[in-house]
Amino acid sequence: MMQADELIRQLKFDDKDLVTAVAQDFATGEILMLAFMNAESIRRTIDAGQAVYWSRSRKRLWHKGEESGNVQNVKEILVDCDGDAIVLKVEQEGGAACHTGHRSCFYRKIDNDGLTEISPRIFDPEIVYKKGGGH
Amino acid sequence: MMQADELIRQLKFDDKDLVTAVAQDFATGEILMLAFMNAESIRRTIDAGQAVYWSRSRKRLWHKGEESGNVQNVKEILVDCDGDAIVLKVEQEGGAACHTGHRSCFYRKIDNDGLTEISPRIFDPEIVYKKGGGH
Repeated sequence: MMQADELIRQLKFDDKDLVTAVAQDFATGEILMLAFMNAESIRRTIDAGQAVYWSRSRKRLWHKGEESGNVQNVKEILVDCDGDAIVLKVEQEGGAACHTGHRSCFYRKIDNDGLTEISPRIFDPEIVYKKGGGH
Repeated sequence: MMQADELIRQLKFDDKDLVTAVAQDFATGEILMLAFMNAESIRRTIDAGQAVYWSRSRKRLWHKGEESGNVQNVKEILVDCDGDAIVLKVEQEGGAACHTGHRSCFYRKIDNDGLTEISPRIFDPEIVYKKGGGH
């Protein structure tokens, strides 16, 4: 069991009581998304074994996959040198982390033609999110 | 050549004119560090082919490795779905990105004993940084 209290004690939350969290595929190392966590979301993540972020736009806890079913099973949590960022190593259920239907939110790269998509859609967001929007 | 102007046009900078940048080892996928970039640092990164961040603590452009020699050669830049975060895929010179001498800033994980170091130091920061501190 990971020690939520000790982790929270070691972190330096910003002026909005958040740290940055990078979700990384546990098996492949692919960076899936970037989000934010407060102390409560860290506690819930460790309790549930699944990523629970703080949604800055919705101003509430956001159990990733609560709508799409694409939850993230957390295998490991890493902490950076100055304690203001963490890496969640996760198993991504449903094959896609991004609300656009792509595996990773980082599905575009910049090259000499501008932004180019480097990976296909795994799902159609209009089907997965009945109400539209949201992760 | 990557198109700096097009990339900057597509990004949504925050109220401090920054986006979050995650540096990831191009070969291994290891997440090395998290930092911030403004438009000028993105232009300089693409011009130099090496990571140039915005240091929030020093309030100036920070050519990563300017003191330690541990520059990051940028191979690819990925952009996330909402344009407020980028991934730099880099070749890390000197074998270590972190000012603590560790390969990655994320060198600790949380487990049932608290925070545990999961990778050794590559260099001694007291030797590399003559004046102490800084990346």
